[in-house]
Amino acid sequence: MPIRHAPLAPHPDRLLPADPGVRAIARRLYEEVRAAPIVSPHGHVDPRLLLDDAPFGDPASLLVTPDHYVTRLLHASGVPLEELGVGRGPLPEADARRAWHRLCARWHLFRGTPVRYWLESELAEIFDVRVRPSEDTADAVYDHVAERLTRDAYRPRALFDRFGISVLATTDDPCDDLSAHAALAADPAWTGRVVPTFRPDRYLEAARPEWAGDVARLGEAADTDTGTYPGWVAAMEARRRYFAEHGATSADHAHEDARTDPLDAAEADRIYRAALAGAAAPGEAVALRRHMLLEMARMSCEDGLVMTLHPGVRRGHHRPTDARYGPDTGHDIPLRTEFTDALRPLLERYGTHPGLRLVLFTVDETAFSRELAPLAGFYPSVYVGAPWWFLDAPEAIRRYRAAVTETVGFSRTSGFIDDTRAFCSIPARHDMSRRLDSGHLAQLVAEHRLDEDEALETLVDLVGDRPREVFRL
Amino acid sequence: MPIRHAPLAPHPDRLLPADPGVRAIARRLYEEVRAAPIVSPHGHVDPRLLLDDAPFGDPASLLVTPDHYVTRLLHASGVPLEELGVGRGPLPEADARRAWHRLCARWHLFRGTPVRYWLESELAEIFDVRVRPSEDTADAVYDHVAERLTRDAYRPRALFDRFGISVLATTDDPCDDLSAHAALAADPAWTGRVVPTFRPDRYLEAARPEWAGDVARLGEAADTDTGTYPGWVAAMEARRRYFAEHGATSADHAHEDARTDPLDAAEADRIYRAALAGAAAPGEAVALRRHMLLEMARMSCEDGLVMTLHPGVRRGHHRPTDARYGPDTGHDIPLRTEFTDALRPLLERYGTHPGLRLVLFTVDETAFSRELAPLAGFYPSVYVGAPWWFLDAPEAIRRYRAAVTETVGFSRTSGFIDDTRAFCSIPARHDMSRRLDSGHLAQLVAEHRLDEDEALETLVDLVGDRPREVFRL
Amino acid sequence: MPIRHAPLAPHPDRLLPADPGVRAIARRLYEEVRAAPIVSPHGHVDPRLLLDDAPFGDPASLLVTPDHYVTRLLHASGVPLEELGVGRGPLPEADARRAWHRLCARWHLFRGTPVRYWLESELAEIFDVRVRPSEDTADAVYDHVAERLTRDAYRPRALFDRFGISVLATTDDPCDDLSAHAALAADPAWTGRVVPTFRPDRYLEAARPEWAGDVARLGEAADTDTGTYPGWVAAMEARRRYFAEHGATSADHAHEDARTDPLDAAEADRIYRAALAGAAAPGEAVALRRHMLLEMARMSCEDGLVMTLHPGVRRGHHRPTDARYGPDTGHDIPLRTEFTDALRPLLERYGTHPGLRLVLFTVDETAFSRELAPLAGFYPSVYVGAPWWFLDAPEAIRRYRAAVTETVGFSRTSGFIDDTRAFCSIPARHDMSRRLDSGHLAQLVAEHRLDEDEALETLVDLVGDRPREVFRL
Repeated sequence: MPIRHAPLAPHPDRLLPADPGVRAIARRLYEEVRAAPIVSPHGHVDPRLLLDDAPFGDPASLLVTPDHYVTRLLHASGVPLEELGVGRGPLPEADARRAWHRLCARWHLFRGTPVRYWLESELAEIFDVRVRPSEDTADAVYDHVAERLTRDAYRPRALFDRFGISVLATTDDPCDDLSAHAALAADPAWTGRVVPTFRPDRYLEAARPEWAGDVARLGEAADTDTGTYPGWVAAMEARRRYFAEHGATSADHAHEDARTDPLDAAEADRIYRAALAGAAAPGEAVALRRHMLLEMARMSCEDGLVMTLHPGVRRGHHRPTDARYGPDTGHDIPLRTEFTDALRPLLERYGTHPGLRLVLFTVDETAFSRELAPLAGFYPSVYVGAPWWFLDAPEAIRRYRAAVTETVGFSRTSGFIDDTRAFCSIPARHDMSRRLDSGHLAQLVAEHRLDEDEALETLVDLVGDRPREVFRL
Repeated sequence: MPIRHAPLAPHPDRLLPADPGVRAIARRLYEEVRAAPIVSPHGHVDPRLLLDDAPFGDPASLLVTPDHYVTRLLHASGVPLEELGVGRGPLPEADARRAWHRLCARWHLFRGTPVRYWLESELAEIFDVRVRPSEDTADAVYDHVAERLTRDAYRPRALFDRFGISVLATTDDPCDDLSAHAALAADPAWTGRVVPTFRPDRYLEAARPEWAGDVARLGEAADTDTGTYPGWVAAMEARRRYFAEHGATSADHAHEDARTDPLDAAEADRIYRAALAGAAAPGEAVALRRHMLLEMARMSCEDGLVMTLHPGVRRGHHRPTDARYGPDTGHDIPLRTEFTDALRPLLERYGTHPGLRLVLFTVDETAFSRELAPLAGFYPSVYVGAPWWFLDAPEAIRRYRAAVTETVGFSRTSGFIDDTRAFCSIPARHDMSRRLDSGHLAQLVAEHRLDEDEALETLVDLVGDRPREVFRL
Repeated sequence: MPIRHAPLAPHPDRLLPADPGVRAIARRLYEEVRAAPIVSPHGHVDPRLLLDDAPFGDPASLLVTPDHYVTRLLHASGVPLEELGVGRGPLPEADARRAWHRLCARWHLFRGTPVRYWLESELAEIFDVRVRPSEDTADAVYDHVAERLTRDAYRPRALFDRFGISVLATTDDPCDDLSAHAALAADPAWTGRVVPTFRPDRYLEAARPEWAGDVARLGEAADTDTGTYPGWVAAMEARRRYFAEHGATSADHAHEDARTDPLDAAEADRIYRAALAGAAAPGEAVALRRHMLLEMARMSCEDGLVMTLHPGVRRGHHRPTDARYGPDTGHDIPLRTEFTDALRPLLERYGTHPGLRLVLFTVDETAFSRELAPLAGFYPSVYVGAPWWFLDAPEAIRRYRAAVTETVGFSRTSGFIDDTRAFCSIPARHDMSRRLDSGHLAQLVAEHRLDEDEALETLVDLVGDRPREVFRL
C-alpha cells in the first residue's frame, strides 16, 4: 500500500533563525558540525540493547510505549497508559497497532513540541517515512516501519554506526556487575564505545522502605560490611573504583534538593544506624542524604568520577499511577530549586579542587542566570549542564544560552547531553542542539558581537571537545 | 472644533512579527480569525449593564475611573486616585473632564504598555477618534467620545452585537440570586448569551472579620444551616447547583496560595465551629481554606463546574489606599507561587477524574515552564490558563507560548480570557491575543517546525473550540 | 613592532537588531543619543583617582586586576587570582605583563559576554588597539596600551572629559570625611561634577564582629553617643546631613534580603544594646537590621536622599578566597529575592510620601515582572532599577525591558547605572545601554506599537532626564 496524504518532509533549514541574513550565517556554521560524531555522556539506553543486537520489536514498542515524553501528553488527552502498552511487557501485534493508532490519531497534540520534532526526524530520516502520521495513515506508517525493523540495517549496532555515535554513556546501579558492558567490550565484532555511569541515588535515601535491603546488597557487591556509616562509605568507594575500572567517567545524582550540609562523623553514623533499624526520623534521613552527597563530592575529588547533579523533581507525583505503572511514567513534576546556599558547603571544601568536575542540571530555569552561571563563572570545578528534560526543547535551549552565556561564555557549559532512553531519538536530539547553537552563534555574529571565525571555533568546541573534556571522555 | 495634532491610526499589521517573511505568514493566519466571534469565558462585566442597556456616562467614567490598569500608573506618576474619580460614584461633568485630562496629559506614561494599546484600539476603532490624546487634545477627544456615547449605537447591547461576542461570563457571588441574569435571559429583545460564574472566595477565608456573617447569609441563600462544616458543604453544593441551573459553567477561586491539604472531617468541623465563634487561630483558618478548596474540587468532579484557580496575589498591598478606596484599586501585587506540591493532594484524588476541569492561572510566570506545563502535560483534568492580569500583554504572551508550548503543545491551554471589567476593551484584548498567536504560529512555520495548514488549524482552535471545550461553553 | 593578526574593529551597528528594517529604525534613534553626556548616578570609582589625576599604571592594573568581572572567569578557567595580581597592591612589570598574558591567552573564554564587549570597546575606542588580543599579540597590545598610559591625554581627568561624563557618583562610607570630594570640588582646575553616595551597610549588620567598633567610629564621626539605638539613629541622621551638604543625593543599601519589619522602640534598643555587648542572637541581629532599613527609609523621606536597594546576594560565597583575597573577588552569588511582602511595611508607611524615591535593583530577574514592575506601577516612590551586575548584559537588558515595560512603561525605570569601579569601562557600558534601548524601542516601532517620534522622545528621556530626575541630580 503506497503511503499518501500530507507529506512528511523535514526542511533542511528547520530551527535555523527565520531572518534571511542570520539564517545564512547559521547555515554556514551548522554545515560544519552537521555530520560530526555524537558524544553522548549521559543517557539511559540499556547496554544489553547493543550487546544482544536483537531486532527491535514493533513500532509502538520502539517509539511509543517506553518513552514518557510521548505517553504523558497522550495520557493528558485522555488515553489510558494501558492502551499505550505502559507497564505491560511485550505487546501482542493488535495492541501494538492500537497504541500506534493512538499516537497517530493525536499527532496534532504534539504540534510545537520537541517530541513531534524528534519523531518526525526519526520517521523521515531513519525510516524513510514520507507521510504525516494521522488516523488515516497510521496503519500504512506502522507497516512501513515494521518492515524496516526486520532488516539488518535497523538492528541496534547498525544504527549505532549509522548514527555516528563515538561514545555512549549508560546509567547503572552501583550493585550492577557491569557484565553487559564487559561482554560488549570483549566482543570482537563490536568496535563502539559504551561506558557505564554510577547512579547511587537509592542508597542515599534512607527513608525509602527498601533502603536497608539496598545497602545490604551494596555491602555484598563491595564485599564490605555496610552496617555502619564508615562501612557504607567504604562500599561506595569500592563500587566507584569498580565502575571506573570498567570505563565509567561520571557519577550521577538526582535528589529532591541540592543541599550538601555536613554532619559530624558520630552523628552521621548514629543516624545511619537508626535508619538501618527503621528508627530514623524523616528529617534525619534527609540530613543523612545531604551529608552523603557531600561525601560523594569528596570521593569525586579522589577518584575523578565527574559528579553530575539533577535535583529538583517531585518524582511520582500521581501516586496511583506510580503504584500501577511504576516510575518514569510521565508524572515527575519539577520543583523550585536552590543552589547558591545548598552547594556552599560542598564548594567551600572542594570547589577549587583540581580533581572535581561538578555539572549542575536544573529543570527550574530561573536558576540559570541567577545561580548556576554565577557559580560556574567562579568555581573551576563547576559547569552549567545543558537544558535537561522539559527544557531540552528549542525555545528553552535558546533561553538557556541567552541566560548563561553572558555570565560564563561557552567554556563553562557542559555541551549537549541527550539524557534519553529512546535510542532512535539520539541523532535527532543532537542535531536539534547543533542547529540551535548554530542559530545562537549566528545571531551573535549578525549583531556584531562575535566574529564568524570565533563562532565556528566555538560551535566545533561545543559539539566535541566540550563534552569530552567536561566528562573526561 | 476639528480634532488635529498627531494622528491616532492603529496599523493593520500591529503586533505581527517585524520580519517581512514571518509577517506575511502571520498576516495570512490572522486574517482567518480576525473577525471570529468572541468567546469570553472569564471576566468581570456586570450583567446589569446589558440588562439595563443604559447609555454609558462620560468618557472618564467609562475608560478611566473603573479601570485599575489605567489608574494605577497615573497614581504612580503622582495623580491622587480621587482626581481620577476612584471611589466616588457618578462624577460631575467638570470632575469627569479633569480625570480625562489627567489621562491625556500623561498619555506618554503608557508607552509600551498594553493599556495604551487597548485604549488606542478602543478610541480609534469604536469611537473613531483620529488624534493622539494629549493635554492639548484632551477636551476635543472628550467631547468627541461624549457625543458618541449619546448615540444608540453606543449603548451596551449595540456594542455587544458590534463586538461579535458569542458568550460572555460574568463573576458572581454565591448568594446572588442571579436575577439580573434571569431577567436578561428572559428578555425577548435580547439574543446574546451571558452566563454567571460562581466565585466563592470570601466564604473560604475564615479569618476575615465578616466571614461568620457571610456564611450565615450563604446558609439563608441555600436554605441550609451553615453552623457546621457539613452544613457549609451542603450550602455550597446547593448554590453551585443553582448557578449551574442558571447557566454557569465554572467556579473561580483566588487565594493567596494554591494548597489543597486535606483535613479529616472532625478537624475540619472543629476549626469551622471555632472560626464561627471567632476563636480559630490564623493558621487554622488557612488550613480550613486549603481543605475547603480541595472540597470545591470534589464538587467540581460531581457537578461539572470547571474549576479555575487564580492564586498568588497580595491583595490590598497598601492598606491606607485599601481603607480609603476599597479593593481592586491598583495595588494588588503578585507573590511567588508554588503549584507542584500545593496541588498534589487535589490531583492525586481528582486529577484523572473525568468530571474535573482545572484551569491554572498565574502571575508568577516562572511557574509556566516549571510547574504548570508539566502538570497539564500529564493530568487530563489540568489546563494551563492564558496569561493573566500583569501578563496579559504582548511580550508576556510571547513568553507564555514559548514557555508552555514545548511541554504541552496548544491543546492543554485554556484559550484566551479577557478577565476584564472594562467592557469596551474586550474586542481589543481578544484581537491582541489573536495577533500574537498568529505571530507565534507564523514563527513556527517560518522555522519549519510546523506546516502552515497545521498552524491555521491550531489558530482557529485556539480562538473558538479551545475555550468552548475547556470551559464547557 | 607593528600590531598584526586578527583585527579588532567594533562594528558601528553592533548590538542593534539584526533585522534590516528594525535596524534602520534603531540606527536613527541611536544616532540621536550616541554622543549625549553620561549621567552616572551609581558607581564605585574612587574620587581620589580624579583628585590626584596621576597616570594609570600598567594595562593589567588598569583593566584586569581590580575588575572582578574579568578575574572571575579567568579563575574559573584555572588561573589563580594571585597570578592576576589580586590582593597584591602595585605589580612589578613582569607580573603585570604575566597577568595581561593570562587574559589575552584566554580571550576566547569571554566570547558572548559583556566583559568581552566592554574590553573590546575600551581597547579600540580609547586606546586605538587594532588587533584582537591573543597569546601571540599579548605583548604588543600590552606595550601599545602602556605607551598610551604615559600620555597626558590618558590621565583620569582628561579621560573624564573625553568620556563626556556630566556627573559621576561614588560610593562612600558614612564615616568618610569626604575630604577627597571637598578638595576636588575646591580645585579651580577641575570643572567636572563628582558626588558622594551614602553607603551605610556595615553599620546595620550587628552580627558582624567589627560592628561594635564600627558604630563607635560612627559616633565619633557624628559627634554623638552611639551607645543606644536612638544615638545610632541620631548619628546616622547627622552623617546623612553631612553627605547631603557635600553633594550626595542618594543612600545605597545592600543586604541579604529586603525585609523592613518594624520593631517597637524598646525592643530595637534592647537588641541594639545586646549587640553592642556581643550578646545578640543571630536572628535578633537580622531583625534589628530590618528595622534599621525601615528607619533609613524614614530618613530618606525627611532628608531627600534617594534610597537605592541592592539586595539578594550571598557575599563571599567561597570563604577561603574571601579570607585570602578579601571581598569583591568574584564569588558573590545571587539569591532568590522576595520584595512584595518584604517591602510592605516600608511602603505602607512611606510608599506615597512625596519625599521618598526608592530604586529597587535585583539580580533575581524573576522579580522584574512579578514584583518590581507591579510595585513601581502603583507607588509614586518606587522605581525599577536598571539591570545590575550579572544582568548588565545585552540579553539580560532585553529581558528586563520586555519584563517591566508592559507593566510600568519607561517612566518608572531608573535609567542606566554603570555600577562600576572600572573607570575606562564607563563609556562602553553607557553606550551598550543606549544601543539596546534603541533596539528595544525600534522593535516597538517596527511592530507598530509606538510611533517613531515617541520612541525618540522616550530614548532621550531614558539617557538624560530619567536618571537626573530619579536620582535628584
